[in-house]
Amino acid sequence: MSIIVYELAGRDDRRFSPYCWRTRMALAHKGLEAEFRPWHFGEKEKISFSGQGRVPVMVDGGETVFDSWTIACHLEDRYPERPSLFGGAPARTLARFVNHFVDLVAHPGLLRLIIADVFAHLVPADRPYFRKSREERFGAKLEELQAGRDEGRAAWRASLEPLRAQLREHAFIAGAEPAYADYIAFGMFAWARAISPYALLERDDPLFAWRERMMALHGGLARSLPGYPLAA
Amino acid sequence: MSIIVYELAGRDDRRFSPYCWRTRMALAHKGLEAEFRPWHFGEKEKISFSGQGRVPVMVDGGETVFDSWTIACHLEDRYPERPSLFGGAPARTLARFVNHFVDLVAHPGLLRLIIADVFAHLVPADRPYFRKSREERFGAKLEELQAGRDEGRAAWRASLEPLRAQLREHAFIAGAEPAYADYIAFGMFAWARAISPYALLERDDPLFAWRERMMALHGGLARSLPGYPLAA
Repeated sequence: MSIIVYELAGRDDRRFSPYCWRTRMALAHKGLEAEFRPWHFGEKEKISFSGQGRVPVMVDGGETVFDSWTIACHLEDRYPERPSLFGGAPARTLARFVNHFVDLVAHPGLLRLIIADVFAHLVPADRPYFRKSREERFGAKLEELQAGRDEGRAAWRASLEPLRAQLREHAFIAGAEPAYADYIAFGMFAWARAISPYALLERDDPLFAWRERMMALHGGLARSLPGYPLAA
Repeated sequence: MSIIVYELAGRDDRRFSPYCWRTRMALAHKGLEAEFRPWHFGEKEKISFSGQGRVPVMVDGGETVFDSWTIACHLEDRYPERPSLFGGAPARTLARFVNHFVDLVAHPGLLRLIIADVFAHLVPADRPYFRKSREERFGAKLEELQAGRDEGRAAWRASLEPLRAQLREHAFIAGAEPAYADYIAFGMFAWARAISPYALLERDDPLFAWRERMMALHGGLARSLPGYPLAA
């Protein structure tokens, strides 16, 4: 049975959705092949069969699943004989806390650092929508939001301290081996790499070495897609 | 074999260490009896046998264990037949992430809201040490730190959003039943309750109802110790 994933794409096939990256890494973790279909913000009709307008959307056999967390749970439950994404129900629940932390703390800070870079890598047809919706949300021009990013970066780095503390004690957020908690956090770095040359991490940051380990996983999956060099 | 815990205490037997509260709740979760010996900052010699100067210190039979996380792991490993604090190794590792989040994000914000209240509830002998060490650390008078707390409270509440999101989906941070991840976060509320009448949470905050559930656990353990009413 084939798996199809609709995945956010920009120009030059840049894959820049942190949520789609979670799904991509989760599928690789499970050793599942999938067809990734590039999707652009304007193509609502392409995923209207899912009943909503965001990606990732996964079609697994006859079943349509959307939302990266729901997709991860679906993969775990449907393919229990393959490597676990969570390591049991109690850990799944706490991985959800990691999910909330990354979505609510780490993502918003990162978005402001690279929001004009995102814009620059969109296909032309998506640009008016993106500019209008994001400038309304933030009450500022994309270029203004990104202009002060060296200061914003310091605060964003500080906000990642709980992840950093975890990585001072373990090779991966989930422990000695990577699991879905790692893919949750890695999604944002894969997102940034796809569309921005901006240096996010210092070389001596535990997150830097962890990101390198994540880039190497699953045969260097993340490296196989277009992106900028990961400078310090 | 008896268990002894040295626990931070203030005047009128207020127990105000968030870390000691984690240990207290963990012992109750395991159904283990313990003798809690009140300890004050000035009594370094009382716990010098542990090789360090902080509480909680636990003596379990012949073994001395300190640091709340190490104590929780000790209890889990030594009493595996009793209710689990973590629910397995993968969840233990992710509970450690919750621990980092609370220690690094939630505690520092809370301390500034109630730091003069802490001072007011110390035994007199501990006050000079506390004032000097904390005022050096923060570069401000305790009373000044606490004076602007209505503004600080808004930022602190916002910083708890990942916990709140978790509690919109589960009755407890760990899921349908409380576990050590809950005791980690609850420690700070038990700490505040012991020494401050300041209203931390709004009534419609998911954390408010969760705190009520936590207060009721283990026969109302947290309610059995001196503290202020939990106002909204």
